[in-house]
Amino acid sequence: MACLFCQIAEKKIPSDIMYEDESMLAFRDIDPQAPTHFLVIPKEHIETLNDLTPEKSSLIGDMVNRARELAGEEGISESGYRMVMNCNRDGGQAVFHIHLHLLGGRSLGWPPG
Amino acid sequence: MACLFCQIAEKKIPSDIMYEDESMLAFRDIDPQAPTHFLVIPKEHIETLNDLTPEKSSLIGDMVNRARELAGEEGISESGYRMVMNCNRDGGQAVFHIHLHLLGGRSLGWPPG
Repeated sequence: MACLFCQIAEKKIPSDIMYEDESMLAFRDIDPQAPTHFLVIPKEHIETLNDLTPEKSSLIGDMVNRARELAGEEGISESGYRMVMNCNRDGGQAVFHIHLHLLGGRSLGWPPG
Repeated sequence: MACLFCQIAEKKIPSDIMYEDESMLAFRDIDPQAPTHFLVIPKEHIETLNDLTPEKSSLIGDMVNRARELAGEEGISESGYRMVMNCNRDGGQAVFHIHLHLLGGRSLGWPPG
């Protein structure tokens, strides 16, 4: 079966897109857990964080940097936000195409799950 | 007052160090929220994620990549883990020197705080 996030990146499945360039896509979470909750994904299909390599780490840095910029556009830079990346079962990874969650607009508790 | 994490990076305050190189340090959280819970910090003092720049994003990518490797050494790559970065009040940022949390060894719930 085709990967859900690959299909979103290919526009075969609609999403509320916030940002797109040649290497990544940002869109709002379909089941938001905070007033602002969006995802940043690479267009390349990478299953889990375990599949990262040093060569691919700059892509992750770019995703984090883009998420930071989008938080600014959402007006939550000063109030604050949390970035989350899940890996495999204990991490609660639901879609096996790496993605960065950014949540804000409310006070996020501790522990983080 | 001097930054807590700068003091840890300078070894003025002891910590349970897992990894160190010229740009970053990894050490176990003093108040662990999971069987495995460690932090990766840059040695450079960067207050919040809002202070990142595109030039510094590769450093974040390297921190994520190092955290992934340490998760493997901890034996939790397959069972899973969560990476978390907090910014400002709503994000629950407690020390104003950016840091990446990695938690694993138990099932992490949703939402992430």
